[in-house]
Amino acid sequence: MHPALSGLPPTGRSPDVPAPPAPAANQEEVRRQNLGAVLRHVHVHGPTSRAELTARLGLNRSTIRALAADLAAAGLVTEKAPTTTRRAGRPSLVVSPRSTRVYARAMTIEPDRLRAARVGLGGRVLDLREVEHPRGSCPADAVRPLSWLIRDMERTAGPDAICVGAAVAVTDTTHGRDGRIRIAGPDDALRVAFDAEFPSGPPVVAGDMADIAALAEQVRGVAAGVDDLVYLHGGPGVSAGIIIGGRLVRGHGGHSGKVGHMVVNPHGHPCRCGSRGCWETEIGDAALLRHAGRDQESPDTVAEVLRAAADGEPAARAAVEQVADWLGFGVANLVNVVNPDTVVFGGSLREVYLAGAETVHRRLDELALPASREQVQLRPAALGGTAALVGAAELAFAHLLADPLGGAAPA
Amino acid sequence: MHPALSGLPPTGRSPDVPAPPAPAANQEEVRRQNLGAVLRHVHVHGPTSRAELTARLGLNRSTIRALAADLAAAGLVTEKAPTTTRRAGRPSLVVSPRSTRVYARAMTIEPDRLRAARVGLGGRVLDLREVEHPRGSCPADAVRPLSWLIRDMERTAGPDAICVGAAVAVTDTTHGRDGRIRIAGPDDALRVAFDAEFPSGPPVVAGDMADIAALAEQVRGVAAGVDDLVYLHGGPGVSAGIIIGGRLVRGHGGHSGKVGHMVVNPHGHPCRCGSRGCWETEIGDAALLRHAGRDQESPDTVAEVLRAAADGEPAARAAVEQVADWLGFGVANLVNVVNPDTVVFGGSLREVYLAGAETVHRRLDELALPASREQVQLRPAALGGTAALVGAAELAFAHLLADPLGGAAPA
Repeated sequence: MHPALSGLPPTGRSPDVPAPPAPAANQEEVRRQNLGAVLRHVHVHGPTSRAELTARLGLNRSTIRALAADLAAAGLVTEKAPTTTRRAGRPSLVVSPRSTRVYARAMTIEPDRLRAARVGLGGRVLDLREVEHPRGSCPADAVRPLSWLIRDMERTAGPDAICVGAAVAVTDTTHGRDGRIRIAGPDDALRVAFDAEFPSGPPVVAGDMADIAALAEQVRGVAAGVDDLVYLHGGPGVSAGIIIGGRLVRGHGGHSGKVGHMVVNPHGHPCRCGSRGCWETEIGDAALLRHAGRDQESPDTVAEVLRAAADGEPAARAAVEQVADWLGFGVANLVNVVNPDTVVFGGSLREVYLAGAETVHRRLDELALPASREQVQLRPAALGGTAALVGAAELAFAHLLADPLGGAAPA
Repeated sequence: MHPALSGLPPTGRSPDVPAPPAPAANQEEVRRQNLGAVLRHVHVHGPTSRAELTARLGLNRSTIRALAADLAAAGLVTEKAPTTTRRAGRPSLVVSPRSTRVYARAMTIEPDRLRAARVGLGGRVLDLREVEHPRGSCPADAVRPLSWLIRDMERTAGPDAICVGAAVAVTDTTHGRDGRIRIAGPDDALRVAFDAEFPSGPPVVAGDMADIAALAEQVRGVAAGVDDLVYLHGGPGVSAGIIIGGRLVRGHGGHSGKVGHMVVNPHGHPCRCGSRGCWETEIGDAALLRHAGRDQESPDTVAEVLRAAADGEPAARAAVEQVADWLGFGVANLVNVVNPDTVVFGGSLREVYLAGAETVHRRLDELALPASREQVQLRPAALGGTAALVGAAELAFAHLLADPLGGAAPA
């Protein structure tokens, strides 16, 4: 298959779309690409025999042997005889990621806490710390405490451990001077502050929390291997990570997925963005509390309403149904626009979906076009609280996986 | 740059996203890829000197010479000395697509007409025919008249002309047995019928009209070279072609872009899809006529209202304003979800946008998040009526450009 076409969804009905401008390739790029393919395979799927790598990647045995040897020499993988083997004859060596040696710094800046983890190649969380983060702080205020957590963890790492990348997931909205919500996104001030804390380490890349959680669910969660995915995250705000054809849809400036600010109810409640009737005003945490007659917005209160609904309290039950109704409404719009294979519900929307699935599906059936609706799966997120850290680690590993022996790769 | 990353949007702020699963590559694929890159360059940009190809594609001179020679030997390009040269010394040969020899069959099945064209490599429309198509006909009924048009044109083609691909753009909605609109999409019945008409030619691939027009505007129209694009087409129905990171967003089953069925007005008018308040009920042709107090839906009547609005007739003027208001409303939602660089208005929405641009921009300013809104350009479509044929030809050329000397390539 032409490499430029490989990211397309494997649908039987519409295989014939033009390839994007085909990049020219040379021998060096081919080797980089193949090293990346082998390393990515063991990173995502875990220890794999050379025979299976040969079959899966469509390269010949001697090529796989040479690539694995190069990765092993660089300290990125081990090659060992399998502990058990079913077949007679010389067993195929098993290639494994060196998870405790090669790691990424993964961090999150959440509305009320900061977390940092060391995540090993292969996606193993080796160590994890968290501290509180006062609400309303600016993201750059998080840099110093996060750096402390990282340094604290690195003191206990093995002497040969090597950090190959660093990433931070940021809830990406902030308030502008006009009082309207703005998108901070990967922030230059943030990058500069991290560079000052870690002058010699790999640069810290920043990503949007929902994009990063979408990646995590697609690589290691409920949507593993799914090419067309909308991940919806609910909390004080609502946003989405959208993956189409196996690629994160970032948009022109990296601001895609601000689905919480689709207007769904032109005569609805004012939104903190300055508009009215945004989806967030109907399915965000504040909406759930409003419908339930509670007036304080905190994760505990949201959890309390969800518990009360499960226990059958009528006001809480009705609140969940009302949010589920608007959830189905907006999901139908996204299904019509994007035609995903899977919609994943995360954050507080995971619990709303589980409690009100019937209502969500009923609205979807009413409002989405049959062809798209019949194909879509709705799923609660699988990774829960670690999704953002697991996803940030994927972001941090991206450069190593694209070019295993170049740049920041260990010697 | 890693080939797998090459489709990403060139934004300064968020360069660090994980590559999709990297495909393994071998020597044969590299050659295919490079032949495709050279042929695509001259197809999109027209005659180009070997020196410029060397600079643009990042390959060395001897590689470009060999690739161009292979393409010339296959009859796909010519290599000639430039007619004028500014520099002293031996001029670099100019590589040109053989537009009159190598062509695609491009066809459209529109609500009220069928069109067919022979489009040469390089995007030159060599010949074009059209016939009426009774409203409400099934797409498969179009196959025989389209085949007649094609055969009629091919009788006048040169003796060495060779057809390398065929594609048809289809307005993709049809009515299901329950009376609700369904998506026909690339239809098996259509493909079988075309195969019966042209048993020995290249297979006919089918695509959605809006997707195909989006491609045309991105390759040769107002959005040339733009990587993140929403193309909105208005007519009796409303749909979009969405291109993100240089790739058409097709969705899981190829049904993405059904933006006409986003619900924007929960208390609005019933839609032919069975839902209520779909965007189409506020910005489709019927909405314009309703607001203007006309009751017959035909392209002529729509054009009449637009003319009357331009002439200052109050009812027509108010109707355009009302449609423009809802147009801005829905565009704001799409801008928040997708964060495109450019939104292109085609079909009757082109005229609505031109007449009501101020209103569209005002709504966008009210409803879209500043970060995304400040980046987006709104543009009327440039290609007009030929967009679908030009885009269908791009779809038809895709296989040749992906693998110039394989498959259907001429000897």
